Amino acid sequence: MRRALGRTGAGALNPSAFDLADSILILERSPSTFRALLAGLPDAWIHRDEGPDTFSAFDNLGHLIHGERTDWIPRARIILEQGADRRFEPFDRFAQQAESAGKSLATLLDEFDALRGENLATLRSWDLGDRELALVGVHPAFGPVTLRQLLAAWVAHDLGHLAQTSRVMAKRHREDVGPWRAFLPILDRGPGSR
Amino acid sequence: MRRALGRTGAGALNPSAFDLADSILILERSPSTFRALLAGLPDAWIHRDEGPDTFSAFDNLGHLIHGERTDWIPRARIILEQGADRRFEPFDRFAQQAESAGKSLATLLDEFDALRGENLATLRSWDLGDRELALVGVHPAFGPVTLRQLLAAWVAHDLGHLAQTSRVMAKRHREDVGPWRAFLPILDRGPGSR
Repeated sequence: MRRALGRTGAGALNPSAFDLADSILILERSPSTFRALLAGLPDAWIHRDEGPDTFSAFDNLGHLIHGERTDWIPRARIILEQGADRRFEPFDRFAQQAESAGKSLATLLDEFDALRGENLATLRSWDLGDRELALVGVHPAFGPVTLRQLLAAWVAHDLGHLAQTSRVMAKRHREDVGPWRAFLPILDRGPGSR
Repeated sequence: MRRALGRTGAGALNPSAFDLADSILILERSPSTFRALLAGLPDAWIHRDEGPDTFSAFDNLGHLIHGERTDWIPRARIILEQGADRRFEPFDRFAQQAESAGKSLATLLDEFDALRGENLATLRSWDLGDRELALVGVHPAFGPVTLRQLLAAWVAHDLGHLAQTSRVMAKRHREDVGPWRAFLPILDRGPGSR
């Protein structure tokens, strides 16, 4: 039943190893997944958050859009160019508060879809191999990172925000479920999964 | 921008209050959300789990299917019938190990879609009001529960398993992200969100 894992030697030995084609499979479906989960929902689902400085479903989507504009591909470019200064611009985790203001959820879903599509076209056009994936840039908070780590983080970041979006929505029913709360640990997980 | 919340007095005052129509909006889209996230992915994404007695993405889907067959609607029926014995059958959280054996992910996605569609048709046909939602059944582990609590738990359970599925997939890259791990708390959240 199980297919051979990965295309590289490392992938065949360790199914957790980074695989660019497998990563793109996740990155390319995230806009559709968020659309399936969120399109058409009323504000009672979309705009509730987990307290001050936490993200609603709407905020999560805006944050992903900001990442498409300023984080993953721009940072990959800095690494690939291997210029004198390989330090990334810091990422503003709350930029979406201003950028999403006045926009509808439908607009954000379309923006995410379009920007992700453009960014994956760029990523594919680079035709990255092991040599490029091992190139290094400098993260403003934690120093040297490889392009492979950046791309793995992009994938995990998408999935983290899908989990965070599900969690903040589930918590709408924290009280409503009565004694089921003890069987639904998601209702008592704290925020922080950004 | 924000619409009036809910259809009931309680809903208008408290956006976290249970609202049947809003709940159905989530329940009816879960099959599409899981399809958008999982359809066509290789086993390296679908079959990894978080250790013994934890769920892979594939297991999560099988568990949701088992719930459609034996949990939510069958228990709602027991409540609505108000017979002499209103105790629910215990739910087997690992039944999917046998039930999903030999099936493809595509088959499970279709099963979930079909069963959820049938169950929501049943739910809608009941045309539940506040009187029915307050009726009580007996959970084998924690005693009396209302139909409203059962339906709220159904919604939170869907969202919990979506978050769990995202988390187990994200953990594929726990090591691959390097120093980003400190910024991606999902990679170190434990299992248990069933």
